[in-house]
Amino acid sequence: MKFCSQCGNPVTLRIPEGDNLPRYICDACQTIHYQNPNIVTGAIPVLGDKILLCKRAIEPRYGLWTLPAGFMENAETLEQAAMRESMEEARANVRLDQLYTVFSLPHVNQVYVMFRATLLDENFSAGPESLEVRLFSEDEIPWHELSFKTIYHTLKYFFADRRHGEFILRSHQIERGPPVHQG
Amino acid sequence: MKFCSQCGNPVTLRIPEGDNLPRYICDACQTIHYQNPNIVTGAIPVLGDKILLCKRAIEPRYGLWTLPAGFMENAETLEQAAMRESMEEARANVRLDQLYTVFSLPHVNQVYVMFRATLLDENFSAGPESLEVRLFSEDEIPWHELSFKTIYHTLKYFFADRRHGEFILRSHQIERGPPVHQG
Repeated sequence: MKFCSQCGNPVTLRIPEGDNLPRYICDACQTIHYQNPNIVTGAIPVLGDKILLCKRAIEPRYGLWTLPAGFMENAETLEQAAMRESMEEARANVRLDQLYTVFSLPHVNQVYVMFRATLLDENFSAGPESLEVRLFSEDEIPWHELSFKTIYHTLKYFFADRRHGEFILRSHQIERGPPVHQG
Repeated sequence: MKFCSQCGNPVTLRIPEGDNLPRYICDACQTIHYQNPNIVTGAIPVLGDKILLCKRAIEPRYGLWTLPAGFMENAETLEQAAMRESMEEARANVRLDQLYTVFSLPHVNQVYVMFRATLLDENFSAGPESLEVRLFSEDEIPWHELSFKTIYHTLKYFFADRRHGEFILRSHQIERGPPVHQG
């Protein structure tokens, strides 16, 4: 940030009175410009013993597999955002079943929120951000071709919990690291 | 938003190519300025059968009671943010026990994430954003003087779940409405 989005004058980075973190402040109109983490949310669409993955048609991680997920928008709920992303990326009609993983990624200022979901029909197809969309059983998951660590961990928890017969909310940090080949 | 924070030229609100929502776009440098929901996170500090509330020393809701909570900052985790807010607002040393409520507030572009927590000692006191900090048993909770609906619902769930002996993650929308007098 170099200029004030309210008045167009240059901003400076300094700690406002009564605060303890540096913020971009406009010395002309005094606006303080806060910058905060973004939420990425999506679904694990389940049909029988299979789950739906999307092959990314966009950067980053073009050509790698992911769960349908994306940035939550203003004026929507987490649940609406997760369903919208399922529709946009996989044309998938889903019913959300449970909030399942909540990962903080402080190195990229993101929080991931993934829901377990039921895929309601087989009328799915690749949206504009996907090259291909298909169902995978556990032994077919392309563990070495997954797009993000968040997706890898969500899938690992999902299959482990399914074996144990109980799904447990997972909330923890995911640190910077290689996106694939953790399998 | 009126000006580009990258180059200082005026922005226009329009739908970028390949997108489906209007964004502020700089016609000079082509930067697309996305705006997304913010996360508010905090704790329910529990000591024995009592919980810790803070009387707000700041607007909005000056003088009303709240749980320690505030905006998550860049470069921190949800858990770090909830503990930081407990320390800043109530000088409270807490151990987080469970992610407990996740509320979407689309009318203000916020997601609230509250943790159940254990208050580790009685060395709490009012931070600069609090007039007073004290422990309340269930029958002492000032239901008609709570600051926000998110706090009201979190506390209602907490006491109901405690009676039933099981704490259940709650995730749903909270709609615009009166902040107090719902009790």
